[in-house]
Amino acid sequence: MSNHYDWLIHNAKLATFDHQNTAYGETRDTSVGVRDGRIELLPKQGFTAATADHRIDADGKWLTPGLIDCHTHLVFGGNRANEFEWRLQGDSYESIAARGGGIVSTVAATRGVSEAQLFDQSAPRLERLLQEGVTTVEIKSGYGLSTEHEIKMLKVARALGDAYPVTVKTTFLGAHAVPVEFAKQANGKQHYIDYVCNTMLPEIAALGLADAVDVFCEGIGFSSDQCEQVFLAAHAHKLPIKGHVEQLSNLGGAVMAAQHKALSVDHVEYLALADVPKLIDTVAVLLPAAYYFLHEQQKPPVEAFRQHGVAMAVATDLNPGTAPLASLLTAMNQSCVLFGLTPEEALMGTTKQAAKALGLATKGRLHDGMDADLALWDIQHLAELSYSINFHRPTAIWQDGNLVSHN
Amino acid sequence: MSNHYDWLIHNAKLATFDHQNTAYGETRDTSVGVRDGRIELLPKQGFTAATADHRIDADGKWLTPGLIDCHTHLVFGGNRANEFEWRLQGDSYESIAARGGGIVSTVAATRGVSEAQLFDQSAPRLERLLQEGVTTVEIKSGYGLSTEHEIKMLKVARALGDAYPVTVKTTFLGAHAVPVEFAKQANGKQHYIDYVCNTMLPEIAALGLADAVDVFCEGIGFSSDQCEQVFLAAHAHKLPIKGHVEQLSNLGGAVMAAQHKALSVDHVEYLALADVPKLIDTVAVLLPAAYYFLHEQQKPPVEAFRQHGVAMAVATDLNPGTAPLASLLTAMNQSCVLFGLTPEEALMGTTKQAAKALGLATKGRLHDGMDADLALWDIQHLAELSYSINFHRPTAIWQDGNLVSHN
Ligand SMILES: [Zn+2]
Ligand SMILES: [Zn+2]
Repeated sequence: MSNHYDWLIHNAKLATFDHQNTAYGETRDTSVGVRDGRIELLPKQGFTAATADHRIDADGKWLTPGLIDCHTHLVFGGNRANEFEWRLQGDSYESIAARGGGIVSTVAATRGVSEAQLFDQSAPRLERLLQEGVTTVEIKSGYGLSTEHEIKMLKVARALGDAYPVTVKTTFLGAHAVPVEFAKQANGKQHYIDYVCNTMLPEIAALGLADAVDVFCEGIGFSSDQCEQVFLAAHAHKLPIKGHVEQLSNLGGAVMAAQHKALSVDHVEYLALADVPKLIDTVAVLLPAAYYFLHEQQKPPVEAFRQHGVAMAVATDLNPGTAPLASLLTAMNQSCVLFGLTPEEALMGTTKQAAKALGLATKGRLHDGMDADLALWDIQHLAELSYSINFHRPTAIWQDGNLVSHN
Repeated sequence: MSNHYDWLIHNAKLATFDHQNTAYGETRDTSVGVRDGRIELLPKQGFTAATADHRIDADGKWLTPGLIDCHTHLVFGGNRANEFEWRLQGDSYESIAARGGGIVSTVAATRGVSEAQLFDQSAPRLERLLQEGVTTVEIKSGYGLSTEHEIKMLKVARALGDAYPVTVKTTFLGAHAVPVEFAKQANGKQHYIDYVCNTMLPEIAALGLADAVDVFCEGIGFSSDQCEQVFLAAHAHKLPIKGHVEQLSNLGGAVMAAQHKALSVDHVEYLALADVPKLIDTVAVLLPAAYYFLHEQQKPPVEAFRQHGVAMAVATDLNPGTAPLASLLTAMNQSCVLFGLTPEEALMGTTKQAAKALGLATKGRLHDGMDADLALWDIQHLAELSYSINFHRPTAIWQDGNLVSHN
């Protein structure tokens, strides 16, 4: 192979996560060549021989993979600030529901806007994530709850990926809640699941709008059996699956999802300790912002995940009801402060493990042949990224081999 | 008076906090004229007759006073990310102290840098605050703990105020911790307080470097008697006072400070309910970030403050040990989520009440003759500012009558 590169980044400390005997897999004296959207690690000799269109002397800064937010609902209409205020003024959940609060209001606001309006409302939230070094983001549907509006949401997610320097992975979350028009029917929840499996999912799969399929397995969502029905339908369309499971109670959704080879099981605060070893082939996605906003007390079984070697990812869960948080670095901080992750686990949770949670084999690590999604940080120690809130932004970001931000 | 203005801002909704029967004192159909660094409210007729160098049609956006962060320690050397990481890796506080962690490390890092280096390290943290609409910030000393280095910190704080579009109020916090050179002496804590009162404070007052004097009244800080000694010395130099009180235990510092006419009593989680009415002439400054980072369980007596009409301010406490948070909007969110403030209380806590906590009679409100420190927000409802994390930035900011940011 030629030794000419688009970019050569030298004098950076690399967070490779590869050397078990070095924290963060810290690697010095190794440059990074970028060519055709991929990276190559160049030890000293390779660097001396290399030529490049552009060179950056990182001057000792840290180079990490671009961050990956592997669980968001960032496409939605409206906001729920009024409801947030009502609750703090003392309103009960029942009263708020009676005033039109809850997911119903987001579904109405999302259905009520055009595709262009939905794009315009969602884009600023994505921009916030990108400013912190996010180069891949997962975006779920789930506020349309009809074929037309779920398709609209997924199209907006795809359009955001076209308009911004970010890889967007879309997830169809039709089984998020029962829409009002089904809720008032007898046996409406099951009728809606049948509609999701037999009508929405085939159409969305045919359009190529979903990269994965998700469910909300919870008392206020769907039963484990209903979620399994969605998973079987997803597999019939060759789509990978993931699940919102064990967030508020234990319905056995995580184990069921793992048995169906889910890419990830998300939330898992109420997972039974005995079930932890059954998750070894999937990823536990921790979502501390929802825990924080909801004043939850039950933490996910982090120590058991460590002991059994279950991969832990960290994501924002960015959504209008339970996690209006547009900062993946803050989610990392919360995963440390609230759940006890180490800063290294938090950073691996938004790179290597987040890539695994999305089934992305070529992202999340600094390794020969991986995608050239990179963030350069002017910090002494990688723990600084998790330690502080709103301090840090990358000094340079590459996405798909292109420098997309530099200051 | 002439009816020509530097700026005319029309079609904004104004958060005046003035009409007790309207949430946020919402006022429509009233324009704001800016002239010579002051504002005037112009009802419809006044606006029709007015002329201006510059006009802004706010198109229904919300106009608030510029935000005021009334309690920060944002000038410091180094960071404490290593210590944050050690704790999450399971180290005890004793072991971390033995490894050189704690405030001692920040004092060493602050003493070890030049004034210019300290400015350069601190400026990015201030920039983050300003991006969110902060136009006034209080900055404390307290990591120098010697005349030379306390003066250096206060000079950096003043220099930041000169370099950025922000009003900086400086606070001398010599009585923050006992420096090592005193700690190893017999009766070193008292010797250090004598040094603060008899040597540091007179010199700093003579240089005009302090706008107020603060203390840390706590078992790990100074006794109520020692803090009172500092307050008396401050008053001898005609400097107003404030105190870190009742953060981790109840030493009676808040009441003692209030008796000495403190501008504010800060933290107050462990304040006795019976003492709440004694704070009616001061301001309780709530600092939820420290509560969050330290996993505290004891919340300040918010409901009692309400019932007795004690003013509540909200601030970041931005510091390297217990609140590495450079976002006043996030502190507002935390004050709601963690302490139960309403979004209106949180916003008043970073405007009207924060001004009171700094003794600033001409800031924090939209009222004829107040300073022209303004923030314009593209939101439907002011509760959005407290509801979300990292969503919002002002679309325009005026400081001291000048437009300093606009997009
Ligand atoms: Zn979610
Ligand atoms: Zn403080």
